[in-house]
Amino acid sequence: MNYQRRIEKVQAALRRKKLDAILISQPANRRYLCGYSAADHGIEESAGVLLVPSGGRVHLLTDFRFQLQAEAEAPQTTVTLYPKGLLALLQDLLPDLGVRSLGFESDYTLHSFAGRLIEKCAGLGVKTVPLAGLVEAMRIIKEDAELDRIRASVALNEQVFQEIYANITPESTEIEIAIAIETCMRRLGAESPSFSSIVATGGRSALPHAVPGPVRVLQDQPLMIDMGLILDGYCSDMTRTFALGKADARYLEIHRLVRKAQLAGIQAIRAGVTGRDVDRAARDVIAKAGYGQNFGHALGHGVGIAIHEEPRLSARNRKHLKSGMVVTVEPGIYIPGWGGIRLENMVVVREDGCEILNSDTTWLDL
Amino acid sequence: MNYQRRIEKVQAALRRKKLDAILISQPANRRYLCGYSAADHGIEESAGVLLVPSGGRVHLLTDFRFQLQAEAEAPQTTVTLYPKGLLALLQDLLPDLGVRSLGFESDYTLHSFAGRLIEKCAGLGVKTVPLAGLVEAMRIIKEDAELDRIRASVALNEQVFQEIYANITPESTEIEIAIAIETCMRRLGAESPSFSSIVATGGRSALPHAVPGPVRVLQDQPLMIDMGLILDGYCSDMTRTFALGKADARYLEIHRLVRKAQLAGIQAIRAGVTGRDVDRAARDVIAKAGYGQNFGHALGHGVGIAIHEEPRLSARNRKHLKSGMVVTVEPGIYIPGWGGIRLENMVVVREDGCEILNSDTTWLDL
Repeated sequence: MNYQRRIEKVQAALRRKKLDAILISQPANRRYLCGYSAADHGIEESAGVLLVPSGGRVHLLTDFRFQLQAEAEAPQTTVTLYPKGLLALLQDLLPDLGVRSLGFESDYTLHSFAGRLIEKCAGLGVKTVPLAGLVEAMRIIKEDAELDRIRASVALNEQVFQEIYANITPESTEIEIAIAIETCMRRLGAESPSFSSIVATGGRSALPHAVPGPVRVLQDQPLMIDMGLILDGYCSDMTRTFALGKADARYLEIHRLVRKAQLAGIQAIRAGVTGRDVDRAARDVIAKAGYGQNFGHALGHGVGIAIHEEPRLSARNRKHLKSGMVVTVEPGIYIPGWGGIRLENMVVVREDGCEILNSDTTWLDL
Repeated sequence: MNYQRRIEKVQAALRRKKLDAILISQPANRRYLCGYSAADHGIEESAGVLLVPSGGRVHLLTDFRFQLQAEAEAPQTTVTLYPKGLLALLQDLLPDLGVRSLGFESDYTLHSFAGRLIEKCAGLGVKTVPLAGLVEAMRIIKEDAELDRIRASVALNEQVFQEIYANITPESTEIEIAIAIETCMRRLGAESPSFSSIVATGGRSALPHAVPGPVRVLQDQPLMIDMGLILDGYCSDMTRTFALGKADARYLEIHRLVRKAQLAGIQAIRAGVTGRDVDRAARDVIAKAGYGQNFGHALGHGVGIAIHEEPRLSARNRKHLKSGMVVTVEPGIYIPGWGGIRLENMVVVREDGCEILNSDTTWLDL
């Protein structure tokens, strides 16, 4: 990854905004700009912050626990520790670097911390400016090297799915399957799952975000598996729904409808359409069949270093898609008591359509 | 858990502060007040917010994906969905409930969202007040029912450790051990690990937050395992360090020093002393032996619904401990190139000392 080029883009943006530096606290932005991969243990426990000046070397500010990792992963930065906390370090560092105006990430800074930062900076004569979306706007369009990593992540996720799928029996429980998925991911080289795997059988699959339980998979009923992993820093995300045993007429009707909606969504994707347009293309298929109330979430979301990122394929996103964006297409129909069916693939937006990243076809076209 | 009593305490606090309601967004606070266990997928993707009025019924505001879980886990609340987002719902709900002044959690609200919330409320004639620590101040003292759950969590964590420990061989890799730990936790009934297990061999154990790798455990060198789980909503956290094979004189010297520091910390704990006092009691032991620079983190942290919570046993905490607080005691010595040794137990603060929650003694007293 060409971190230097990315930093230069941020620095050019800072100069346009007449800012001397920006604090980058959002973990995916941090990783995107320097390769440092440590995760925050929640926003309250940061694994570090980048201080990017409008010119010159980037500073990676962190604590003792992460020092060796930071130095190994981001040798192009100056790693500095803050034994007395970030604000105490900034009190020395900002004057040393001649910073008189400082941006911070409004979308990943706590209200309480922002208040203390603004006060501290005011005392130093430094102007603070909340910013939103500066690095996200870069991340939303994937470079070729990123697409390669996403392809590899999707391929490995499918390999894990196939291995698990082949070993599901009527004796399997949801939680056993979930453990098998996450164990297999790590064994095959994933950094980690990209989210907690969803394995839901029968009526439990009517919860879009079901938590796997000690429950045996039910014969002839929907079994939904939503899984993803992180490989070389990039996420994958795929959902398959199928029935162990025999799928009855109702199952087939709903499954085919979800697939039809997914294909309508995929067909609608190309540079220049809005997230709302694509969401509606898929939603209309489901609504016309009378299940509009049973599809309560958005059609899809961006995927990259973060498992959920921009752009959203939702009624609320009126922005235009651009070539090089990566999104999921995941319609679902959820019927309380009966269960749910969701099908999810990932695609790359192109000028004239989209490229489907998945090759797995398990139970897609029935 | 007596959620009603906890809500009444919050409501009494609101009346003292002359606030009509508070928004509770912090996930552990949310769970503490109503039992709803969904985790946020990062602060940007909330699984819901509690609206606690100064009197009357609590509202749990969430989205479609979590509806059934919210209704099942928190039937005492009114579950309301926000298909157009939280702010759009509050626009209707705050006037309906007659809310004229609203607190929000400054320590778990993004700067950008707080800005929009404040603006929206101003338009409705509602005063907004940032609050910090209101629910945390309740959570910091554990009720007896909570201590029972923490004890059970610690006991299960030790059971998992013993099972894993018995099966480590020179062929084991760090990552295999980490997978075995997390699989065993789930098999024995844990909700999940309370953090990503740390398994670090040899020089890698010098990173306090090492990520397990595909590396075989080295003979005669430190092997550090830091693991915890969540059982019935409550966390455990334990670190053991040992050597496969033969521990040499240097290993024994450092290990005994860390244990001596841990015992000094434990001996210093009782209601009325500060977190700083306890940290210093342990740190002095290590510093006097010449390893002060090699113990770069705080001595311990609170544990409960969250794996890291108040109080901190650190030089920066000048507040007094109280009976019923639960903390870890985890000194460590980290020597780049050689490795690290950390030993961690959990204790309950009592008026005249503390109660050690661990019974595992593996490689503690050599």
